[in-house]
Amino acid sequence: MRLKYVIEAQQFEVDWLLNDLFPLADKMERIVKKKHGWYWLRYFFDRRALAGKEMISLYYEPSTRTRISHEEAMIKLGGKVASATEHAKVFSSAAKGETIEDTIRVLNSYYPDVIVLRSDEEGMAKRAAAVSLVSIINAGDGTGQHPTQALLDLYTIQKEIKRIAGISIAMVGDLARGRTVRSLSYLLGKFPDVKIYFVSPEVAQMRDDIKDYLKRHGVWFTEEHDLRIIAPKVDVIYQTRTQKERGKLLMKYEKDPGFYIVNQEVLDLMKEDAIVMHPLPHTEEIAPEVDFDPRAVYFRQAENGLYIRMALLRLILQPKRNWRFWRRAKG
Amino acid sequence: MRLKYVIEAQQFEVDWLLNDLFPLADKMERIVKKKHGWYWLRYFFDRRALAGKEMISLYYEPSTRTRISHEEAMIKLGGKVASATEHAKVFSSAAKGETIEDTIRVLNSYYPDVIVLRSDEEGMAKRAAAVSLVSIINAGDGTGQHPTQALLDLYTIQKEIKRIAGISIAMVGDLARGRTVRSLSYLLGKFPDVKIYFVSPEVAQMRDDIKDYLKRHGVWFTEEHDLRIIAPKVDVIYQTRTQKERGKLLMKYEKDPGFYIVNQEVLDLMKEDAIVMHPLPHTEEIAPEVDFDPRAVYFRQAENGLYIRMALLRLILQPKRNWRFWRRAKG
Amino acid sequence: MRLKYVIEAQQFEVDWLLNDLFPLADKMERIVKKKHGWYWLRYFFDRRALAGKEMISLYYEPSTRTRISHEEAMIKLGGKVASATEHAKVFSSAAKGETIEDTIRVLNSYYPDVIVLRSDEEGMAKRAAAVSLVSIINAGDGTGQHPTQALLDLYTIQKEIKRIAGISIAMVGDLARGRTVRSLSYLLGKFPDVKIYFVSPEVAQMRDDIKDYLKRHGVWFTEEHDLRIIAPKVDVIYQTRTQKERGKLLMKYEKDPGFYIVNQEVLDLMKEDAIVMHPLPHTEEIAPEVDFDPRAVYFRQAENGLYIRMALLRLILQPKRNWRFWRRAKG
Repeated sequence: MRLKYVIEAQQFEVDWLLNDLFPLADKMERIVKKKHGWYWLRYFFDRRALAGKEMISLYYEPSTRTRISHEEAMIKLGGKVASATEHAKVFSSAAKGETIEDTIRVLNSYYPDVIVLRSDEEGMAKRAAAVSLVSIINAGDGTGQHPTQALLDLYTIQKEIKRIAGISIAMVGDLARGRTVRSLSYLLGKFPDVKIYFVSPEVAQMRDDIKDYLKRHGVWFTEEHDLRIIAPKVDVIYQTRTQKERGKLLMKYEKDPGFYIVNQEVLDLMKEDAIVMHPLPHTEEIAPEVDFDPRAVYFRQAENGLYIRMALLRLILQPKRNWRFWRRAKG
Repeated sequence: MRLKYVIEAQQFEVDWLLNDLFPLADKMERIVKKKHGWYWLRYFFDRRALAGKEMISLYYEPSTRTRISHEEAMIKLGGKVASATEHAKVFSSAAKGETIEDTIRVLNSYYPDVIVLRSDEEGMAKRAAAVSLVSIINAGDGTGQHPTQALLDLYTIQKEIKRIAGISIAMVGDLARGRTVRSLSYLLGKFPDVKIYFVSPEVAQMRDDIKDYLKRHGVWFTEEHDLRIIAPKVDVIYQTRTQKERGKLLMKYEKDPGFYIVNQEVLDLMKEDAIVMHPLPHTEEIAPEVDFDPRAVYFRQAENGLYIRMALLRLILQPKRNWRFWRRAKG
Repeated sequence: MRLKYVIEAQQFEVDWLLNDLFPLADKMERIVKKKHGWYWLRYFFDRRALAGKEMISLYYEPSTRTRISHEEAMIKLGGKVASATEHAKVFSSAAKGETIEDTIRVLNSYYPDVIVLRSDEEGMAKRAAAVSLVSIINAGDGTGQHPTQALLDLYTIQKEIKRIAGISIAMVGDLARGRTVRSLSYLLGKFPDVKIYFVSPEVAQMRDDIKDYLKRHGVWFTEEHDLRIIAPKVDVIYQTRTQKERGKLLMKYEKDPGFYIVNQEVLDLMKEDAIVMHPLPHTEEIAPEVDFDPRAVYFRQAENGLYIRMALLRLILQPKRNWRFWRRAKG
């Protein structure tokens, strides 16, 4: 079964994640870092794996980080980025009132191999996939989902904690609008014995659709209002950023800013082998001193994004044969 | 004779269109769709036809569609897009008061192979070509011309109706500001027995320069105010979009919106083998139900844009020898 | 010693400029113009010198010219431009409050080979280099420096006047905000017997940091208020542009516009073998008639920017061996 659309976190199965995607991401890291042992000739082969393939980046809202990450992933595998459109909302035919369906139909007629779509409207990626013959990667749709981010988050947990089943995780901050925590919750719901602590002010609590999903899947979760009470209990603190750019700034963080901010006080409370994650860019929700703590993994997390996106592109665009060949050679 | 500048629709001769450009565009479609019969080895050769060639995209007003189409055309033939500037008016040295002539002189000094220029000022492409040693493709200049669009429109008519000479065409909507209908009128004026119906509100009638050109070339045309009267008579309905983004919104479409909108009523009146064209993106000037009618060819029309632009790039950038060789091999 | 960061003009030594950079730039010109004498096979080798290398362009303020120049330089040597971000200040994570250090750390984790950074804040390139393992090229930081511009300016003087030591140069216009003249002053201070005339209105005089630097290095300089008095004495008139886009427009050019504008009157006063330089784009500070005088070298100067940037990229990214090989083969 070839991967065709990357639309939402729920679409992925645990088995596929642990046995296909993550090992391939590991391999991508070796390719990028040129750690190939005796077979460095393979390196040149891998760097040309997607030669002749074309990506179109279509961005309805800006995201330098996500865009560069996807484009670098494509280029590192020998593919070409046909065209990068920033801030399509202001600049492009969207401003002329065209529907996403029509835009995707026209882009399809230029025969790219994959379209990376970032939008500011929930559900747009799904609508795009419904009319697209070309592969679609959802690079975030409004307050909806951000599946590649969720995959790299999960991959980071697997890499740092060495397991996903049975972990305890605190998701902190603006959970109502933060699509990264939404997508990650969907994925975590598929693993056994995961405990989720949603730590947020009243106004920014996790929305009901996620909570219903977790209940249906029998995932233990609770809602809290002070990170310092939760910090000693968890393996992962997933801090989110205040969503200034989306809607009005809501987060007064109530009376005590310490309620939701990761700082030295929280670090002191944390377990020795716990980690602090963040989708970046981070501002005041993580204190500057945290950057120097070995448990702060967010820069490694960003790096993992490159490997996960390379792996996804390869699974989407690569003829199955090569990839099977590698599996066989490896196993 | 090598093609050097693509500035205005009038510059092309009927013979060159029918015998050089359109057959090459047909070939480009076969390359993109990998329909090469027994000689698939040629495929790899063709996909590298423009290897080592560089395009600079210079956009003084946004146009995602035109830009991606040109860049995809370049990439599919193995060329490189050196740099894509969106909305140069706001962002670039144009904002510092530089003339187009100076900008083109400097870009020339970087030795690209072709410059694709989109501007918001009539005549800018002509001024650019006057000082450029490098090939220039006009990708639309204000209310002036949009020659590659006109070529793909004509190519679409040829492909769908199987002839251009003798057709009847209704051009509908904002004809005063719509550069696509202006450029297409120039081209149609070169074919015998073409009948043109300009269907537009009083305030958006076709300008006199085009009407004079058509009179000089002995082309039959008339001006109408209700598409429903004209629909049964024509082979092609060319609907244009309301130019909201250029100048003030003018089109109240008078009392009856049906006067200028393509909807089911108009479809019922049309001939069985007539077609509806539109430069896209379309909004309310074409009713949603029209998309599903087989006579609505506008998505195929957009696709033809890729092939026409690939053919143009090849005629501009390719050493003549290869192209002749292909002609010989073919004929 | 491999070149790693290009941050400020002071970092370069005279010997390296005259014996390494400028001869390599000469070679780059021969590559671009395909003037390779008998060994045209080398051409294909040189055009692929940076194959597999990746550049990230990060622009916090717009600069079409600098950006296209860097990207063309990369592409002409076979490298890839991973991603070009325009106007990051408005569009990117910078708007979300991220520090430059964090942005660079994340970009590092995508393993590009060089990051070209243009910012609107003095000292940003230095801060970026402090945390970057990847090479950084400063493409201008606010009112700070613009070292690649200074290098191409110096290269142009060398090429046109055939010497740098002992020249007399008039720097004219807004010297307080013009980073090109600031960077060039630093470089000129390293050559013996250079005479600098700073010609500017009271409000736009060269800042003290540069004047202190020149005093320390024993460079002769003076400040003047009328270009027409200085014009007959100098080998080079370096005109700068009025910095409309940076801060408020200051330059009323006092009573007599002729004080600071290069026009026919100034041309008539100049030496026969003197030259007029300008970083471009130019507006009213150079009269239109000057363009046609053979002493106006500013378009050739812009072209030299391509060669200098190609040479810099090669010195940064190329394995030393090849480059030494060329030196040996040549000498």
